[in-house]
Amino acid sequence: MEWDHIIKNGTIVTSREQYKANIYVKDEKIAAISSVELPGDAREITDANGKYVLPGFIETHVHSRDGRKGAYYKEDFFHSSMAGVVGGVTTLFEMPNCNPAIYNVENMNDLISCITPKAHLDFGVWALCLGNLNKDQIIPLAEAGVVGFKFFWGYAIDSKTYQLIYNYEEGMKDVIPPLDDGEIYKIFREVQKTGKLLGIHAENFALIKMLTAEVKASGDKSYEAMLRSRPPVSELTVIETGILFAQATGAHLHIHHLASGDGVELIRDAQKKNIHVTAETCTHYLELSNEDYDRVGPLIKGYPPIRLKRDQELLWDGLRDGTLSYVCSDHAPHSYEEKMQDLWTAPAGMANIETMAPVMINAVNEGKITLNQLVQFLSENQAKQFGFYPQKGSLEVGTDADIVVVDLDKEYVLDQEKLHSRTKLTPFHGRKMKGLPVQTILRGKTVAKDGEVVSEPCGKFVRPL
Amino acid sequence: MEWDHIIKNGTIVTSREQYKANIYVKDEKIAAISSVELPGDAREITDANGKYVLPGFIETHVHSRDGRKGAYYKEDFFHSSMAGVVGGVTTLFEMPNCNPAIYNVENMNDLISCITPKAHLDFGVWALCLGNLNKDQIIPLAEAGVVGFKFFWGYAIDSKTYQLIYNYEEGMKDVIPPLDDGEIYKIFREVQKTGKLLGIHAENFALIKMLTAEVKASGDKSYEAMLRSRPPVSELTVIETGILFAQATGAHLHIHHLASGDGVELIRDAQKKNIHVTAETCTHYLELSNEDYDRVGPLIKGYPPIRLKRDQELLWDGLRDGTLSYVCSDHAPHSYEEKMQDLWTAPAGMANIETMAPVMINAVNEGKITLNQLVQFLSENQAKQFGFYPQKGSLEVGTDADIVVVDLDKEYVLDQEKLHSRTKLTPFHGRKMKGLPVQTILRGKTVAKDGEVVSEPCGKFVRPL
Amino acid sequence: MEWDHIIKNGTIVTSREQYKANIYVKDEKIAAISSVELPGDAREITDANGKYVLPGFIETHVHSRDGRKGAYYKEDFFHSSMAGVVGGVTTLFEMPNCNPAIYNVENMNDLISCITPKAHLDFGVWALCLGNLNKDQIIPLAEAGVVGFKFFWGYAIDSKTYQLIYNYEEGMKDVIPPLDDGEIYKIFREVQKTGKLLGIHAENFALIKMLTAEVKASGDKSYEAMLRSRPPVSELTVIETGILFAQATGAHLHIHHLASGDGVELIRDAQKKNIHVTAETCTHYLELSNEDYDRVGPLIKGYPPIRLKRDQELLWDGLRDGTLSYVCSDHAPHSYEEKMQDLWTAPAGMANIETMAPVMINAVNEGKITLNQLVQFLSENQAKQFGFYPQKGSLEVGTDADIVVVDLDKEYVLDQEKLHSRTKLTPFHGRKMKGLPVQTILRGKTVAKDGEVVSEPCGKFVRPL
Amino acid sequence: MEWDHIIKNGTIVTSREQYKANIYVKDEKIAAISSVELPGDAREITDANGKYVLPGFIETHVHSRDGRKGAYYKEDFFHSSMAGVVGGVTTLFEMPNCNPAIYNVENMNDLISCITPKAHLDFGVWALCLGNLNKDQIIPLAEAGVVGFKFFWGYAIDSKTYQLIYNYEEGMKDVIPPLDDGEIYKIFREVQKTGKLLGIHAENFALIKMLTAEVKASGDKSYEAMLRSRPPVSELTVIETGILFAQATGAHLHIHHLASGDGVELIRDAQKKNIHVTAETCTHYLELSNEDYDRVGPLIKGYPPIRLKRDQELLWDGLRDGTLSYVCSDHAPHSYEEKMQDLWTAPAGMANIETMAPVMINAVNEGKITLNQLVQFLSENQAKQFGFYPQKGSLEVGTDADIVVVDLDKEYVLDQEKLHSRTKLTPFHGRKMKGLPVQTILRGKTVAKDGEVVSEPCGKFVRPL
Ligand SMILES: [Zn+2]
Ligand SMILES: [Zn+2]
Ligand SMILES: [Zn+2]
Ligand SMILES: [Zn+2]
Ligand SMILES: [Zn+2]
Ligand SMILES: [Zn+2]
Ligand SMILES: [Zn+2]
Ligand SMILES: [Zn+2]
Repeated sequence: MEWDHIIKNGTIVTSREQYKANIYVKDEKIAAISSVELPGDAREITDANGKYVLPGFIETHVHSRDGRKGAYYKEDFFHSSMAGVVGGVTTLFEMPNCNPAIYNVENMNDLISCITPKAHLDFGVWALCLGNLNKDQIIPLAEAGVVGFKFFWGYAIDSKTYQLIYNYEEGMKDVIPPLDDGEIYKIFREVQKTGKLLGIHAENFALIKMLTAEVKASGDKSYEAMLRSRPPVSELTVIETGILFAQATGAHLHIHHLASGDGVELIRDAQKKNIHVTAETCTHYLELSNEDYDRVGPLIKGYPPIRLKRDQELLWDGLRDGTLSYVCSDHAPHSYEEKMQDLWTAPAGMANIETMAPVMINAVNEGKITLNQLVQFLSENQAKQFGFYPQKGSLEVGTDADIVVVDLDKEYVLDQEKLHSRTKLTPFHGRKMKGLPVQTILRGKTVAKDGEVVSEPCGKFVRPL
Repeated sequence: MEWDHIIKNGTIVTSREQYKANIYVKDEKIAAISSVELPGDAREITDANGKYVLPGFIETHVHSRDGRKGAYYKEDFFHSSMAGVVGGVTTLFEMPNCNPAIYNVENMNDLISCITPKAHLDFGVWALCLGNLNKDQIIPLAEAGVVGFKFFWGYAIDSKTYQLIYNYEEGMKDVIPPLDDGEIYKIFREVQKTGKLLGIHAENFALIKMLTAEVKASGDKSYEAMLRSRPPVSELTVIETGILFAQATGAHLHIHHLASGDGVELIRDAQKKNIHVTAETCTHYLELSNEDYDRVGPLIKGYPPIRLKRDQELLWDGLRDGTLSYVCSDHAPHSYEEKMQDLWTAPAGMANIETMAPVMINAVNEGKITLNQLVQFLSENQAKQFGFYPQKGSLEVGTDADIVVVDLDKEYVLDQEKLHSRTKLTPFHGRKMKGLPVQTILRGKTVAKDGEVVSEPCGKFVRPL
Repeated sequence: MEWDHIIKNGTIVTSREQYKANIYVKDEKIAAISSVELPGDAREITDANGKYVLPGFIETHVHSRDGRKGAYYKEDFFHSSMAGVVGGVTTLFEMPNCNPAIYNVENMNDLISCITPKAHLDFGVWALCLGNLNKDQIIPLAEAGVVGFKFFWGYAIDSKTYQLIYNYEEGMKDVIPPLDDGEIYKIFREVQKTGKLLGIHAENFALIKMLTAEVKASGDKSYEAMLRSRPPVSELTVIETGILFAQATGAHLHIHHLASGDGVELIRDAQKKNIHVTAETCTHYLELSNEDYDRVGPLIKGYPPIRLKRDQELLWDGLRDGTLSYVCSDHAPHSYEEKMQDLWTAPAGMANIETMAPVMINAVNEGKITLNQLVQFLSENQAKQFGFYPQKGSLEVGTDADIVVVDLDKEYVLDQEKLHSRTKLTPFHGRKMKGLPVQTILRGKTVAKDGEVVSEPCGKFVRPL
Repeated sequence: MEWDHIIKNGTIVTSREQYKANIYVKDEKIAAISSVELPGDAREITDANGKYVLPGFIETHVHSRDGRKGAYYKEDFFHSSMAGVVGGVTTLFEMPNCNPAIYNVENMNDLISCITPKAHLDFGVWALCLGNLNKDQIIPLAEAGVVGFKFFWGYAIDSKTYQLIYNYEEGMKDVIPPLDDGEIYKIFREVQKTGKLLGIHAENFALIKMLTAEVKASGDKSYEAMLRSRPPVSELTVIETGILFAQATGAHLHIHHLASGDGVELIRDAQKKNIHVTAETCTHYLELSNEDYDRVGPLIKGYPPIRLKRDQELLWDGLRDGTLSYVCSDHAPHSYEEKMQDLWTAPAGMANIETMAPVMINAVNEGKITLNQLVQFLSENQAKQFGFYPQKGSLEVGTDADIVVVDLDKEYVLDQEKLHSRTKLTPFHGRKMKGLPVQTILRGKTVAKDGEVVSEPCGKFVRPL
């Protein structure tokens, strides 16, 4: 027997177990798991002695700024996927607000052909819901294999490019104003037909606009002022309307990047009523709060905003009790110049794909979650929710050999200079950490090791099973 | 002693008790309650032997179409208040969408002076919230003694007359489009300062507009088609957003004319979380359903629409367990010609002030509620919620001698020809009934008896204590 | 008109209102309530100006130690009823563990004739459940007019006298051991047939016996040691078994003297499931805790024991939210010599009937409850629960003129020397207080005034309506 | 490489996945799982093509009637373990009420040496709690490796043999009466120290005794009469007291053989309050009801009794939602002569170990549960709850090669003649079934195949990890 890769002597970690065994890869799949040494040579042998062997991580929420007209000065898929694999990610789902945006099959195929040559990892693609504008594309996009549909609730759209408008004012030219509830309801009905999930950015645009004007007029430029301009109620109202629409239409609602601790309760209550709603949160909502602003500055700005310690605790609770399905990074890089402006001018978004797993592994060392839960929150639950399980998200014979080797003991200070995103900025810079991914294997091949990419791009587009 | 009025031999009914006693009125107040005959003459003596003596009913939700520019062909205060007193109502609260609308103190005083000469009963007045347009009038209106603030969520407004626009289309001239959530949130904040309640018409305009267009396009003109155009979710989304706004601002939210049974659960859950939200429902939601459409025709049309038997049951449950505070009629007459059009063209609204109490008394005879609960749902709870208790809504010494004598045994068929509203139309026409008010006493004076008004107008404006 | 008594110028307080009016009594009943001065003389006139006029208090839980073979050195009905009326009580319910015990109609009649001549107030009587021993007396006792049935769960009984055995040991002669669950279940079934409530002393005898032996063996004689010998679980297990028996049999279970805060939650949960269970607590559980032991000494000993501050808070919560129906004193006097022994030797029980209302009125002044709630917790709720309403427990025309005049402003230090119980001992001795009853009127006649009894005994046996 | 056993071509089923792979056994463990054919010979090769490969089943509740003084005419370990392996069981836990009973380490070792030579499967042992009698043996027994402690709540014990007395009457000689709550509470405290679970037979002895006497006296000999003698409340009261004791002591309470559907709710509520309580139910409670009595006769008798269809449904719900941990058979054989008496005389208990898995597999085919859930309810959850996971209860490399091959398609009629228990009686006799275990492998060795035992006894005592 000629094996492609043997990962030996490590401790395999699944969502429920840990056990010592070797993994033998053949033709990109896990061909055997064995506690005895199997005969046969291997093209590659990894000695994971003293380390943990986990299913490759799945990052569902990435804005790589790529596409034919991408904002390459912020990021591109070559860099975001490098950052991903160094951070233990073997599959990512690209958000559809690239340029051109993914609102039809043509643009989707375009993006796929554009980023495949740069892909260091496997990737799925989200599609955009624009209401009537692309109503007839929802079913074709589902058939083309998108992972789900994203709706940017409350955002206006450029009527020519269909790009999101971040600072919409009434009366702007060539702009489609935010959709009203009637059109949004139709989106729920349409996506329901596909059986795929409808992910929403849940912020009440009109409420935030009014409060922002008030807060700006007050002259207060503190972080607390910004929090007042986007209070929890601005998330909660959209979440609740979404839940009621999901109940009425039967659509599967997914809440992206939940930031408000009180949102956990709304979602938990809806789940108890058997309404089909799931949610994710991000490492920055779990591990940062308003108290970090003085240290981190405008870099910490995101939408929805990072809130209070109390929200952190409620989000961790929601994660541990299953109300939240998993953790993502909402990787959304901006250039150094953009982010280093004052708090109100700097764009929202952070480049966290590479720090996501280290931050969560550190949380394991802090006792916040177990190593088994780490596998659930970074891999298994995503694979199940989006229909890739067990091909992705597990370590069973016959599944893709997407594997991360984790060193749980290594202590270090997180240094943003060593990141692989085009923009090397993270609010976690300078944090003392323990534990990190040290080797990432994509379908049997090592693509990153010890903080560096060690392979040419070899990722590919993947679609739900 | 010279008494003004003695009501003798009747059974006094409060929210908790029934006992035989005489009531002695002096100077418009209950001066004495006595089981022995007190000495002294009386200008008027009512023998209530075999009958029940209840506090006068309070109808909180009336559109009398009056005002300097009122739609007198539909109704006026003279007629609505006649209908009221014949139906046992001694206090009504007039809705502010009269013409001119009550969005400032001047218009309020104008309305008061306009309708006082026609008032057969005491009346309070609601004020209208128009967002920024009358933000600075909220506190003055509160100080001027309005009973609460009404916000017609989702309605556009004529920018000149501030009248509601019932068939708003984008692009209409001289129209202020429906307020967005930012402006609505400010209304909650402003009303919160007054400590008064903010009543909302809870229907999601944008959702209904879209669904109505769809249903109309389908050509289906059945009542079920109209229900599909205004489904429960259109009520529920507004209720929930209102609840979250109430939670965030501390305002007291009041849900007008709840029609959806599922709304009861949302309100119950919010009350359990100590959010300050109350609600009312109407006799037509309690006692009519889609199954009555064939018999009643377009007359049954109201917004929100009368729904299913299931909704009826949930509303009765909500009333009995205290989730809903009380019952009103949402008296909103239209002319015969207007209502006798096809279902889609006819305006929404019914003239039910005079049938409200008979329908509820009939429900007592059907065992749905007790006579003590009747006092709560038609009088005491309103008085408490709006700050008139015990002056109104009770039968204690020292309080206004607003009294209804009820004959619980009388059987009859409800005949709309005998109604006193200008428009003699009711969906309850032809219903076999048992029990009705037979005499109505306003501050000691009999104003209606045996189905007829027996006094000149002698009502006056009243304000919360 | 010749009135018996006029109480004028006071503020009448009911469970919902306060209003100024005069009360006119005729033939022991409230004949009129009037805001104007009614003509006619009166044998007695009380000027309640500046004071509050409440329905007379009802104390449901009194052990007067009376009967043909009563423990008169501890107390008798003459003294307990004097203490009652001075404390604003106009009706009390006597517990059946007198001597002879009230386990049949004969003994009941015997007690009634024994205590009537000494009665300064009206009284009802509880009957005792002894299992098979008096199974055939349950229905006759109900027909004879007992207020309810009491079962001393876990107590042994002297087989000759049917007196409770407080220090039962296995093997005692002439003793019926505590009933087992089978016999207790039959009691529930039998009492269910009468529609009356079954009150239980809820302590797990076997558990307490074991823990007491352990604690005594440890040599620890602190109050905390005694608490360890009767922990909350000893109350909770009996309450829960009682609840399940009530659910299975349909009996109305009543929990006497709830002391454990966690018991409130069990009862609340059962009520939510529509199981017929009610509960009372006592002033000493609401206002004393283990922290008072150092000051008060063995006097504080009661069964169940006074627990922690946390229990106090949960009991107040349960009272305010309606889980607990009312407050009583569990008046159970012992002689000075008996109580002044060491904590383990002294008998359990306190003489609190006279301090009950003052302590609760003081709580009104502290803002813990309102004056309207005071009427509910000391009078109206008892009258309703035991079937005396509105004859007792209300202030309506036609009902018994049982009235307490309360001075809400008077400040004083509670002095046990001034009490009227035979044993002048109270754990509230020395407490700074504000507010107290200053005049007590029984069926129209003043029986106590300014801390002294002013009438010969004129109370009588009363039975549910 | 020389493998011990290869199970090839089957579909491996875990609690979450199904995938095709081969299993390679070496030294009693799963040495490799592989989708490719691994080189090397094997002593045994099983072709599982078209079949499902599951972790061996774990039966936690077996009364084999063995021991030095065993009731061999009913059953012995040789037969019960044969029945077990034919039914897919690879590990069973023996109940401690054998003879001599397992109330100390000596008896435990005695039993182990007695049954090991007859063991066709691996076995753990429960220990008995006798209160003070063996209080000092609790910790030694835990250290000796028992799986948990069993307390027969409400049963009397022979004071010489410590055997359970099934028909206790007061006054019996040489009998220790049922323990009171004080002694039971001490059992909870003592077991809590060991961290092991305390399993209880939850029936209220005193209540049942009284009701049984009543029902017997009535002369009614129907099955419904027997149900009236042991109503749900007799289970519920013991469960609730157990829950409160668990809460107070921190012990892990386990409810054996839950029969009452309402018990599920009590347990669910307790789990929500984070009280450590788990529960099991049996195949006969899930799949039989009072409606089967006419067909099955006295054979159906068990304690607690098989109840109504409604109970079945609530038990299935509780299993599916995780309130109940797993399913067992409560294998408790009696001789043909014993069981074929009238309903009141026949002893309680059934011989169901061999039918347990077939009945549950049939339920998979009926759509009641999934194949993944079958793995949880028959294997994984037991292994986790009792501390054997993943050594038992999983199919991972490195764990014991305890494997069941299941044919999901085979249709047949269950015939008790083919059973392997000494007493060939089952209430499932004659039932049309689909699906059954066809091969059982214990630590790599096939011990049963196609309904027959194919190996000498090779089981051994196992203890929690
Ligand atoms: Zn977003
Ligand atoms: Zn994003
Ligand atoms: Zn309206
Ligand atoms: Zn209206
Ligand atoms: Zn007691
Ligand atoms: Zn007592
Ligand atoms: Zn058992
Ligand atoms: Zn058993």
